[in-house]
Amino acid sequence: MTTRLLQIDFPYDGPWGEALASACDPLAHDIAGESGLRWKIWTENRERGRAGGIYLFDDEAACTRYLEKHRARLAGFGIVDIRAEVFEVNGPLSAITRAPL
Amino acid sequence: MTTRLLQIDFPYDGPWGEALASACDPLAHDIAGESGLRWKIWTENRERGRAGGIYLFDDEAACTRYLEKHRARLAGFGIVDIRAEVFEVNGPLSAITRAPL
Repeated sequence: MTTRLLQIDFPYDGPWGEALASACDPLAHDIAGESGLRWKIWTENRERGRAGGIYLFDDEAACTRYLEKHRARLAGFGIVDIRAEVFEVNGPLSAITRAPL
Repeated sequence: MTTRLLQIDFPYDGPWGEALASACDPLAHDIAGESGLRWKIWTENRERGRAGGIYLFDDEAACTRYLEKHRARLAGFGIVDIRAEVFEVNGPLSAITRAPL
């Protein structure tokens, strides 16, 4: 079983920061219960008008399943121009640079 | 002082995995000592021929300084088609999803 890192970002107009945290609180609790998800970091850049997330999953199956589900959810919000990249993590190098895995 | 997440990825032909870990061991130790860097996760996808990293910095100044330095270093390896995105982290949402911040 090899972990997978999922990197997603997309064009986004807000809300940002605390307003986003309020709006997405229920969604965040839902995502926290996602099978095979270790963690998600929520990312936002209001100057560039982009948002997204970095996720770590237990394995490729959990990552693929979530990506399909999240793609459909974002499409429901009208967000379709998504950039999604799936990576393996290089363990020895990440350990040297204190990665929180 | 607000942390910044830096997301970098680029076309890459290998080496991968353990061979990459051996080749980049000195570089990883150098990066580990980078001022203002909390951590880096090293990412690789040999099927898609891409690699990169996810970084967390103490603040925007440290992030910008590192990005310029790393861009020059990658250019020295012949890697110039780099995608780099800088984000703020949404703290409340990330806390709900167990983000390692």
